Amino acid sequence: MITANQKKFVKSLAQKKFRTENNCFVVEGVKLVEELLQSDFEVMNVYATSNWIENNPSFEAEKISPKDLAIMSSFKTANEVIAVVKQKQQYTIDYTKHLSIVLDSLQDPGNLGTIIRTADWFGIKTIVCSADTVDVYNPKVIQATMGSLFRVNVLYLNLPEFFKENKSLSVYGALLNGENVYQKTLTKKGSVLLMGNESKGISDSLLPFITDKILIPKIGQAESLNVSTATAILCAEFSK
Amino acid sequence: MITANQKKFVKSLAQKKFRTENNCFVVEGVKLVEELLQSDFEVMNVYATSNWIENNPSFEAEKISPKDLAIMSSFKTANEVIAVVKQKQQYTIDYTKHLSIVLDSLQDPGNLGTIIRTADWFGIKTIVCSADTVDVYNPKVIQATMGSLFRVNVLYLNLPEFFKENKSLSVYGALLNGENVYQKTLTKKGSVLLMGNESKGISDSLLPFITDKILIPKIGQAESLNVSTATAILCAEFSK
Repeated sequence: MITANQKKFVKSLAQKKFRTENNCFVVEGVKLVEELLQSDFEVMNVYATSNWIENNPSFEAEKISPKDLAIMSSFKTANEVIAVVKQKQQYTIDYTKHLSIVLDSLQDPGNLGTIIRTADWFGIKTIVCSADTVDVYNPKVIQATMGSLFRVNVLYLNLPEFFKENKSLSVYGALLNGENVYQKTLTKKGSVLLMGNESKGISDSLLPFITDKILIPKIGQAESLNVSTATAILCAEFSK
Repeated sequence: MITANQKKFVKSLAQKKFRTENNCFVVEGVKLVEELLQSDFEVMNVYATSNWIENNPSFEAEKISPKDLAIMSSFKTANEVIAVVKQKQQYTIDYTKHLSIVLDSLQDPGNLGTIIRTADWFGIKTIVCSADTVDVYNPKVIQATMGSLFRVNVLYLNLPEFFKENKSLSVYGALLNGENVYQKTLTKKGSVLLMGNESKGISDSLLPFITDKILIPKIGQAESLNVSTATAILCAEFSK
Protein backbone atom coordinates (compact mmCIF):
# COMPACT_ATOMS: atom_id res chain seq x y z
CA MET A 1 0.00 0.00 0.00
CA ILE A 2 1.46 3.31 -1.10
CA THR A 3 1.69 5.93 1.66
CA ALA A 4 0.74 9.59 1.43
CA ASN A 5 4.41 10.43 1.96
CA GLN A 6 5.50 8.31 -1.00
CA LYS A 7 2.94 10.02 -3.23
CA LYS A 8 4.05 13.41 -2.01
CA PHE A 9 7.69 12.50 -2.63
CA VAL A 10 7.10 11.38 -6.23
CA LYS A 11 4.99 14.44 -6.92
CA SER A 12 7.72 16.70 -5.49
CA LEU A 13 10.20 15.41 -8.07
CA ALA A 14 8.41 17.46 -10.73
CA GLN A 15 10.48 20.31 -9.26
CA LYS A 16 14.19 20.59 -9.92
CA LYS A 17 14.92 21.61 -6.34
CA PHE A 18 13.64 18.30 -4.99
CA ARG A 19 15.22 16.28 -7.81
CA THR A 20 18.62 17.76 -6.96
CA GLU A 21 18.16 17.34 -3.20
CA ASN A 22 17.26 13.70 -3.61
CA ASN A 23 19.48 12.99 -6.61
CA CYS A 24 16.68 11.27 -8.47
CA PHE A 25 13.99 11.84 -11.09
CA VAL A 26 10.76 10.37 -12.43
CA VAL A 27 10.11 8.40 -15.62
CA GLU A 28 6.47 7.97 -16.66
CA GLY A 29 4.53 5.86 -19.10
CA VAL A 30 4.69 2.37 -20.58
CA LYS A 31 7.06 3.12 -23.47
CA LEU A 32 9.58 5.20 -21.50
CA VAL A 33 9.68 2.83 -18.53
CA GLU A 34 10.24 -0.07 -20.94
CA GLU A 35 13.30 1.72 -22.35
CA LEU A 36 14.42 2.64 -18.82
CA LEU A 37 14.35 -0.96 -17.65
CA GLN A 38 16.64 -1.93 -20.54
CA SER A 39 19.15 0.79 -19.62
CA ASP A 40 21.91 0.96 -17.01
CA PHE A 41 20.09 3.61 -14.97
CA GLU A 42 19.48 2.61 -11.35
CA VAL A 43 15.75 2.27 -10.70
CA MET A 44 14.71 2.92 -7.10
CA ASN A 45 10.95 2.31 -7.24
CA VAL A 46 8.34 1.34 -9.79
CA TYR A 47 4.69 2.21 -9.10
CA ALA A 48 2.24 0.63 -11.54
CA THR A 49 -1.38 -0.27 -12.11
CA SER A 50 -2.41 -3.91 -11.96
CA ASN A 51 -2.58 -3.98 -15.75
CA TRP A 52 1.11 -3.03 -16.14
CA ILE A 53 2.13 -5.51 -13.43
CA GLU A 54 0.33 -8.34 -15.26
CA ASN A 55 2.12 -7.43 -18.51
CA ASN A 56 5.53 -7.14 -16.82
CA PRO A 57 5.68 -10.01 -14.33
CA SER A 58 9.48 -10.07 -14.20
CA PHE A 59 9.81 -6.58 -12.73
CA GLU A 60 9.19 -5.71 -9.13
CA ALA A 61 6.56 -2.98 -8.89
CA GLU A 62 4.32 -1.61 -6.21
CA LYS A 63 0.66 -1.77 -7.21
CA ILE A 64 -1.21 1.54 -7.19
CA SER A 65 -4.67 2.64 -8.25
CA PRO A 66 -5.15 4.71 -11.42
CA LYS A 67 -6.32 7.49 -9.11
CA ASP A 68 -3.04 7.52 -7.17
CA LEU A 69 -1.13 7.34 -10.45
CA ALA A 70 -2.94 10.46 -11.65
CA ILE A 71 -2.07 12.25 -8.41
CA MET A 72 1.62 11.41 -8.78
CA SER A 73 1.87 12.18 -12.50
CA SER A 74 3.24 15.39 -14.01
CA PHE A 75 1.00 14.95 -17.04
CA LYS A 76 -2.69 15.42 -17.72
CA THR A 77 -3.04 11.80 -18.74
CA ALA A 78 -1.06 9.36 -16.62
CA ASN A 79 -0.08 6.11 -18.28
CA GLU A 80 0.04 2.92 -16.13
CA VAL A 81 3.49 3.26 -14.60
CA ILE A 82 5.85 5.69 -12.84
CA ALA A 83 9.44 4.93 -11.90
CA VAL A 84 11.75 6.80 -9.54
CA VAL A 85 15.29 6.66 -10.89
CA LYS A 86 18.74 7.73 -9.63
CA GLN A 87 20.35 10.58 -11.53
CA LYS A 88 23.53 9.56 -13.31
CA GLN A 89 26.80 10.74 -11.89
CA GLN A 90 29.19 12.55 -14.19
CA TYR A 91 31.33 10.48 -16.51
CA THR A 92 34.78 10.82 -18.01
CA ILE A 93 34.41 11.43 -21.72
CA ASP A 94 37.10 11.62 -24.37
CA TYR A 95 35.86 14.42 -26.60
CA THR A 96 38.69 13.94 -29.09
CA LYS A 97 37.19 10.71 -30.46
CA HIS A 98 33.67 11.70 -31.55
CA LEU A 99 31.33 14.53 -32.42
CA SER A 100 29.59 16.01 -29.35
CA ILE A 101 26.86 18.63 -29.08
CA VAL A 102 27.28 21.66 -26.81
CA LEU A 103 24.17 23.64 -25.83
CA ASP A 104 24.41 27.20 -24.55
CA SER A 105 21.53 28.19 -22.29
CA LEU A 106 18.69 26.26 -23.92
CA GLN A 107 15.45 27.04 -22.11
CA ASP A 108 12.69 25.01 -23.74
CA PRO A 109 12.26 21.45 -22.41
CA GLY A 110 10.82 20.24 -25.74
CA ASN A 111 13.89 21.52 -27.59
CA LEU A 112 16.34 19.78 -25.27
CA GLY A 113 14.36 16.53 -25.38
CA THR A 114 14.13 16.62 -29.17
CA ILE A 115 17.87 17.29 -29.49
CA ILE A 116 18.62 14.27 -27.28
CA ARG A 117 16.37 12.13 -29.53
CA THR A 118 18.10 13.49 -32.65
CA ALA A 119 21.55 12.83 -31.15
CA ASP A 120 20.51 9.23 -30.46
CA TRP A 121 19.30 8.81 -34.08
CA PHE A 122 22.63 10.02 -35.42
CA GLY A 123 24.75 8.06 -32.93
CA ILE A 124 26.02 11.13 -31.09
CA LYS A 125 26.80 9.99 -27.55
CA THR A 126 27.42 13.18 -25.62
CA ILE A 127 25.64 16.49 -25.05
CA VAL A 128 27.34 19.12 -22.90
CA CYS A 129 24.95 21.78 -21.54
CA SER A 130 25.74 25.12 -19.96
CA ALA A 131 24.80 25.18 -16.28
CA ASP A 132 21.76 27.38 -17.01
CA THR A 133 20.29 25.03 -19.63
CA VAL A 134 16.91 23.50 -18.75
CA ASP A 135 17.28 20.43 -16.51
CA VAL A 136 17.46 17.16 -18.45
CA TYR A 137 15.42 15.47 -15.69
CA ASN A 138 12.48 17.87 -16.22
CA PRO A 139 9.44 15.65 -17.00
CA LYS A 140 8.80 17.44 -20.32
CA VAL A 141 12.40 16.91 -21.45
CA ILE A 142 12.21 13.22 -20.59
CA GLN A 143 8.92 12.86 -22.47
CA ALA A 144 10.33 14.54 -25.60
CA THR A 145 13.42 12.28 -25.65
CA MET A 146 11.16 9.25 -26.31
CA GLY A 147 13.62 7.09 -24.38
CA SER A 148 16.79 8.39 -26.01
CA LEU A 149 17.75 9.95 -22.67
CA PHE A 150 18.86 6.49 -21.54
CA ARG A 151 21.38 6.20 -24.40
CA VAL A 152 22.92 9.70 -24.57
CA ASN A 153 25.23 11.22 -21.93
CA VAL A 154 24.01 14.66 -20.89
CA LEU A 155 26.39 16.73 -18.75
CA TYR A 156 26.15 20.21 -17.24
CA LEU A 157 29.41 22.14 -17.26
CA ASN A 158 30.80 25.65 -17.17
CA LEU A 159 31.20 26.13 -20.92
CA PRO A 160 34.13 28.61 -20.97
CA GLU A 161 36.03 26.22 -18.69
CA PHE A 162 35.05 23.27 -20.84
CA PHE A 163 36.45 24.97 -23.95
CA LYS A 164 39.61 26.04 -22.15
CA GLU A 165 40.21 22.48 -20.95
CA ASN A 166 39.59 21.05 -24.42
CA LYS A 167 41.63 23.35 -26.62
CA SER A 168 42.28 20.84 -29.38
CA LEU A 169 38.61 20.51 -30.36
CA SER A 170 37.13 21.96 -33.54
CA VAL A 171 34.18 24.07 -32.40
CA TYR A 172 31.50 24.50 -35.08
CA GLY A 173 29.21 27.32 -33.96
CA ALA A 174 25.80 27.82 -35.61
CA LEU A 175 25.56 31.54 -36.31
CA LEU A 176 23.39 33.67 -38.56
CA ASN A 177 26.63 35.26 -39.86
CA GLY A 178 28.31 31.88 -40.39
CA GLU A 179 29.56 30.36 -43.63
CA ASN A 180 27.37 28.12 -45.77
CA VAL A 181 27.67 24.76 -44.01
CA TYR A 182 27.35 22.86 -47.31
CA GLN A 183 30.60 24.41 -48.51
CA LYS A 184 32.56 23.38 -45.41
CA THR A 185 34.40 20.14 -44.82
CA LEU A 186 32.89 18.78 -41.62
CA THR A 187 34.97 16.53 -39.39
CA LYS A 188 33.24 14.52 -36.69
CA LYS A 189 36.30 13.32 -34.78
CA GLY A 190 37.32 15.76 -32.07
CA SER A 191 34.57 18.22 -32.96
CA VAL A 192 31.71 19.84 -31.12
CA LEU A 193 28.61 21.43 -32.58
CA LEU A 194 27.76 24.51 -30.49
CA MET A 195 24.13 25.70 -30.52
CA GLY A 196 22.84 28.82 -28.78
CA ASN A 197 19.82 29.97 -26.79
CA GLU A 198 16.37 30.09 -28.46
CA SER A 199 16.20 33.87 -28.71
CA LYS A 200 19.73 35.16 -28.04
CA GLY A 201 21.80 32.58 -29.89
CA ILE A 202 25.35 31.80 -28.73
CA SER A 203 26.64 33.96 -25.83
CA ASP A 204 29.25 36.58 -26.67
CA SER A 205 31.60 35.03 -24.10
CA LEU A 206 31.70 31.79 -26.12
CA LEU A 207 32.34 33.31 -29.55
CA PRO A 208 36.16 33.32 -29.13
CA PHE A 209 36.14 29.52 -28.77
CA ILE A 210 34.44 28.95 -32.14
CA THR A 211 36.83 27.68 -34.81
CA ASP A 212 34.22 27.36 -37.59
CA LYS A 213 31.15 29.59 -37.93
CA ILE A 214 28.47 27.74 -39.85
CA LEU A 215 25.04 28.63 -41.27
CA ILE A 216 22.24 26.68 -42.92
CA PRO A 217 21.54 28.80 -46.02
CA LYS A 218 18.17 30.56 -46.03
CA ILE A 219 16.01 30.72 -49.14
CA GLY A 220 12.82 32.20 -47.68
CA GLN A 221 12.04 34.83 -45.07
CA ALA A 222 11.92 33.32 -41.56
CA GLU A 223 14.24 35.16 -39.19
CA SER A 224 15.71 31.96 -37.83
CA LEU A 225 15.15 28.24 -37.47
CA ASN A 226 14.00 26.56 -34.27
CA VAL A 227 17.14 25.41 -32.41
CA SER A 228 16.21 21.72 -32.32
CA THR A 229 15.46 21.87 -36.05
CA ALA A 230 18.77 23.57 -36.87
CA THR A 231 20.65 21.08 -34.67
CA ALA A 232 19.03 18.21 -36.56
CA ILE A 233 19.93 19.59 -40.00
CA LEU A 234 23.53 20.08 -38.86
CA CYS A 235 23.77 16.63 -37.23
CA ALA A 236 22.51 15.17 -40.51
CA GLU A 237 25.26 17.04 -42.40
CA PHE A 238 27.95 15.78 -40.02
CA SER A 239 26.65 12.23 -40.35
CA LYS A 240 26.95 11.93 -44.13
CA MET B 1 -13.53 50.82 -22.94
CA ILE B 2 -13.50 47.08 -23.63
CA THR B 3 -16.74 45.30 -22.76
CA ALA B 4 -17.14 42.03 -20.92
CA ASN B 5 -18.57 40.56 -24.13
CA GLN B 6 -15.51 41.53 -26.14
CA LYS B 7 -13.23 39.92 -23.57
CA LYS B 8 -15.36 36.80 -23.57
CA PHE B 9 -15.31 36.70 -27.37
CA VAL B 10 -11.50 36.93 -27.62
CA LYS B 11 -11.09 34.34 -24.89
CA SER B 12 -13.50 31.99 -26.70
CA LEU B 13 -11.25 32.00 -29.78
CA ALA B 14 -8.80 29.78 -27.92
CA GLN B 15 -11.23 27.02 -28.93
CA LYS B 16 -11.41 25.76 -32.50
CA LYS B 17 -15.21 25.58 -32.42
CA PHE B 18 -15.53 29.33 -31.86
CA ARG B 19 -12.72 30.15 -34.30
CA THR B 20 -14.54 28.24 -37.03
CA GLU B 21 -17.96 29.71 -36.18
CA ASN B 22 -16.57 33.23 -36.34
CA ASN B 23 -14.00 32.63 -39.08
CA CYS B 24 -11.28 34.38 -37.11
CA PHE B 25 -8.36 33.74 -34.76
CA VAL B 26 -6.10 35.48 -32.26
CA VAL B 27 -2.51 36.63 -32.61
CA GLU B 28 -0.68 37.56 -29.39
CA GLY B 29 2.49 39.33 -28.44
CA VAL B 30 4.63 42.19 -29.72
CA LYS B 31 6.74 40.22 -32.19
CA LEU B 32 3.91 38.23 -33.78
CA VAL B 33 1.56 41.22 -34.08
CA GLU B 34 4.37 43.19 -35.70
CA GLU B 35 4.72 40.49 -38.36
CA LEU B 36 0.93 40.28 -38.68
CA LEU B 37 0.61 44.00 -39.39
CA GLN B 38 3.11 43.66 -42.25
CA SER B 39 1.13 40.78 -43.80
CA ASP B 40 -1.95 40.70 -46.02
CA PHE B 41 -4.12 39.14 -43.30
CA GLU B 42 -7.23 41.16 -42.47
CA VAL B 43 -7.02 42.46 -38.90
CA MET B 44 -10.38 43.00 -37.21
CA ASN B 45 -9.34 44.37 -33.80
CA VAL B 46 -6.18 45.18 -31.92
CA TYR B 47 -6.27 45.35 -28.12
CA ALA B 48 -3.12 46.72 -26.55
CA THR B 49 -1.64 48.20 -23.40
CA SER B 50 -0.79 51.91 -23.35
CA ASN B 51 2.89 51.00 -23.75
CA TRP B 52 2.28 49.22 -27.07
CA ILE B 53 0.04 52.04 -28.30
CA GLU B 54 2.76 54.60 -27.59
CA ASN B 55 5.30 52.53 -29.53
CA ASN B 56 2.93 51.96 -32.47
CA PRO B 57 1.15 55.27 -33.00
CA SER B 58 0.29 54.53 -36.63
CA PHE B 59 -1.94 51.55 -35.83
CA GLU B 60 -5.45 51.82 -34.49
CA ALA B 61 -5.74 49.90 -31.25
CA GLU B 62 -8.13 49.79 -28.35
CA LYS B 63 -6.40 50.46 -25.04
CA ILE B 64 -6.77 47.76 -22.40
CA SER B 65 -5.30 47.20 -18.97
CA PRO B 66 -2.61 44.55 -18.40
CA LYS B 67 -5.19 42.78 -16.24
CA ASP B 68 -7.72 42.55 -19.08
CA LEU B 69 -4.94 41.44 -21.43
CA ALA B 70 -4.08 38.60 -19.05
CA ILE B 71 -7.75 37.57 -18.95
CA MET B 72 -7.97 37.43 -22.74
CA SER B 73 -4.63 35.69 -23.31
CA SER B 74 -4.15 31.97 -24.00
CA PHE B 75 -0.71 32.08 -22.41
CA LYS B 76 0.58 32.28 -18.86
CA THR B 77 2.41 35.49 -19.61
CA ALA B 78 0.51 37.90 -21.83
CA ASN B 79 2.60 40.32 -23.86
CA GLU B 80 1.23 43.86 -24.51
CA VAL B 81 -1.02 43.18 -27.50
CA ILE B 82 -3.71 40.85 -28.84
CA ALA B 83 -5.17 41.02 -32.35
CA VAL B 84 -8.29 39.37 -33.72
CA VAL B 85 -7.71 38.36 -37.34
CA LYS B 86 -9.83 36.95 -40.17
CA GLN B 87 -8.97 33.42 -41.24
CA LYS B 88 -7.69 33.22 -44.80
CA GLN B 89 -9.96 31.77 -47.42
CA GLN B 90 -8.65 28.95 -49.58
CA TYR B 91 -6.41 29.85 -52.48
CA THR B 92 -5.76 28.38 -55.89
CA ILE B 93 -2.28 26.92 -55.92
CA ASP B 94 -0.31 25.47 -58.81
CA TYR B 95 1.45 22.52 -57.22
CA THR B 96 3.37 21.72 -60.38
CA LYS B 97 5.69 24.72 -59.99
CA HIS B 98 7.22 24.30 -56.53
CA LEU B 99 7.89 21.91 -53.67
CA SER B 100 5.00 21.67 -51.20
CA ILE B 101 4.73 19.88 -47.87
CA VAL B 102 1.81 17.53 -47.14
CA LEU B 103 1.08 16.60 -43.51
CA ASP B 104 -0.96 13.54 -42.65
CA SER B 105 -2.75 13.80 -39.31
CA LEU B 106 -0.20 15.82 -37.33
CA GLN B 107 -1.46 16.25 -33.77
CA ASP B 108 1.09 18.35 -31.91
CA PRO B 109 0.71 22.14 -32.24
CA GLY B 110 4.42 22.71 -31.65
CA ASN B 111 5.29 20.37 -34.51
CA LEU B 112 2.96 22.08 -36.98
CA GLY B 113 4.17 25.52 -35.95
CA THR B 114 7.81 24.51 -36.25
CA ILE B 115 7.22 22.99 -39.70
CA ILE B 116 5.62 26.24 -40.89
CA ARG B 117 8.67 28.14 -39.61
CA THR B 118 11.01 25.68 -41.36
CA ALA B 119 9.03 25.94 -44.61
CA ASP B 120 9.37 29.73 -44.46
CA TRP B 121 13.14 29.45 -43.93
CA PHE B 122 13.50 27.23 -46.98
CA GLY B 123 11.13 29.28 -49.14
CA ILE B 124 8.43 26.59 -49.31
CA LYS B 125 5.16 28.44 -49.85
CA THR B 126 2.48 25.78 -49.32
CA ILE B 127 1.60 23.21 -46.68
CA VAL B 128 -1.38 20.92 -47.30
CA CYS B 129 -2.77 19.30 -44.15
CA SER B 130 -5.18 16.39 -43.80
CA ALA B 131 -8.52 17.48 -42.36
CA ASP B 132 -7.67 15.88 -38.99
CA THR B 133 -4.36 17.72 -38.57
CA VAL B 134 -4.19 20.14 -35.61
CA ASP B 135 -5.73 23.53 -36.44
CA VAL B 136 -3.22 26.06 -37.76
CA TYR B 137 -5.07 28.81 -35.85
CA ASN B 138 -4.49 27.04 -32.50
CA PRO B 139 -2.64 29.60 -30.29
CA LYS B 140 0.26 27.19 -29.68
CA VAL B 141 0.73 26.62 -33.41
CA ILE B 142 0.77 30.37 -34.07
CA GLN B 143 3.31 30.92 -31.31
CA ALA B 144 5.63 28.22 -32.66
CA THR B 145 5.56 29.66 -36.20
CA MET B 146 7.29 32.83 -34.91
CA GLY B 147 5.42 34.82 -37.57
CA SER B 148 6.04 32.50 -40.50
CA LEU B 149 2.32 31.70 -40.53
CA PHE B 150 1.78 35.00 -42.32
CA ARG B 151 4.07 33.98 -45.21
CA VAL B 152 3.15 30.31 -45.79
CA ASN B 153 -0.17 29.07 -47.23
CA VAL B 154 -1.66 26.36 -45.01
CA LEU B 155 -4.64 24.46 -46.44
CA TYR B 156 -6.78 21.62 -45.07
CA LEU B 157 -7.84 19.09 -47.70
CA ASN B 158 -8.97 15.52 -48.09
CA LEU B 159 -5.57 13.99 -48.89
CA PRO B 160 -6.64 11.01 -51.04
CA GLU B 161 -8.71 13.42 -53.16
CA PHE B 162 -5.80 15.87 -53.30
CA PHE B 163 -3.47 13.17 -54.63
CA LYS B 164 -6.08 11.92 -57.12
CA GLU B 165 -6.57 15.45 -58.45
CA ASN B 166 -2.81 16.05 -58.73
CA LYS B 167 -1.64 12.86 -60.39
CA SER B 168 1.42 14.37 -62.04
CA LEU B 169 3.16 15.21 -58.76
CA SER B 170 6.18 13.34 -57.43
CA VAL B 171 5.23 12.29 -53.91
CA TYR B 172 8.24 11.79 -51.61
CA GLY B 173 7.02 9.91 -48.54
CA ALA B 174 9.16 9.77 -45.39
CA LEU B 175 9.07 6.13 -44.29
CA LEU B 176 11.20 4.01 -41.98
CA ASN B 177 11.46 1.48 -44.83
CA GLY B 178 12.34 4.14 -47.40
CA GLU B 179 15.52 4.45 -49.45
CA ASN B 180 18.50 6.49 -48.26
CA VAL B 181 17.47 10.04 -49.17
CA TYR B 182 21.10 11.04 -49.83
CA GLN B 183 21.27 8.56 -52.70
CA LYS B 184 18.14 9.90 -54.40
CA THR B 185 17.91 12.71 -56.92
CA LEU B 186 15.45 15.15 -55.38
CA THR B 187 13.38 17.40 -57.65
CA LYS B 188 11.59 20.38 -56.10
CA LYS B 189 9.42 21.35 -59.06
CA GLY B 190 6.09 19.53 -59.04
CA SER B 191 6.94 17.58 -55.89
CA VAL B 192 5.42 17.15 -52.47
CA LEU B 193 7.09 15.96 -49.30
CA LEU B 194 4.62 13.78 -47.39
CA MET B 195 5.12 13.44 -43.61
CA GLY B 196 3.04 11.23 -41.32
CA ASN B 197 1.49 11.34 -37.86
CA GLU B 198 3.76 11.54 -34.77
CA SER B 199 3.21 7.97 -33.66
CA LYS B 200 1.58 6.14 -36.59
CA GLY B 201 3.49 7.64 -39.52
CA ILE B 202 1.83 7.89 -42.94
CA SER B 203 -1.67 6.35 -43.18
CA ASP B 204 -1.96 3.09 -45.12
CA SER B 205 -4.54 4.71 -47.40
CA LEU B 206 -1.94 7.21 -48.63
CA LEU B 207 0.87 4.74 -49.33
CA PRO B 208 -0.30 4.01 -52.91
CA PHE B 209 0.18 7.68 -53.83
CA ILE B 210 3.87 7.73 -52.85
CA THR B 211 6.21 7.71 -55.84
CA ASP B 212 9.48 7.85 -53.82
CA LYS B 213 9.92 6.33 -50.37
CA ILE B 214 12.70 8.15 -48.56
CA LEU B 215 14.56 7.70 -45.27
CA ILE B 216 17.11 9.72 -43.32
CA PRO B 217 19.75 7.06 -42.55
CA LYS B 218 20.05 6.12 -38.88
CA ILE B 219 23.44 5.63 -37.22
CA GLY B 220 22.34 5.33 -33.57
CA GLN B 221 19.45 3.69 -31.76
CA ALA B 222 16.46 6.06 -31.56
CA GLU B 223 13.33 4.42 -32.96
CA SER B 224 12.43 7.48 -35.00
CA LEU B 225 13.00 11.19 -35.37
CA ASN B 226 10.53 13.84 -34.27
CA VAL B 227 8.38 14.73 -37.30
CA SER B 228 9.28 18.43 -37.36
CA THR B 229 12.96 17.48 -37.12
CA ALA B 230 12.70 14.96 -39.97
CA THR B 231 10.77 17.46 -42.10
CA ALA B 232 13.53 20.03 -41.56
CA ILE B 233 16.32 17.64 -42.56
CA LEU B 234 14.42 16.69 -45.72
CA CYS B 235 13.56 20.31 -46.60
CA ALA B 236 17.27 21.10 -46.25
CA GLU B 237 18.09 18.27 -48.65
CA PHE B 238 15.56 19.47 -51.22
CA SER B 239 16.90 23.01 -50.94
CA LYS B 240 20.50 22.25 -51.86
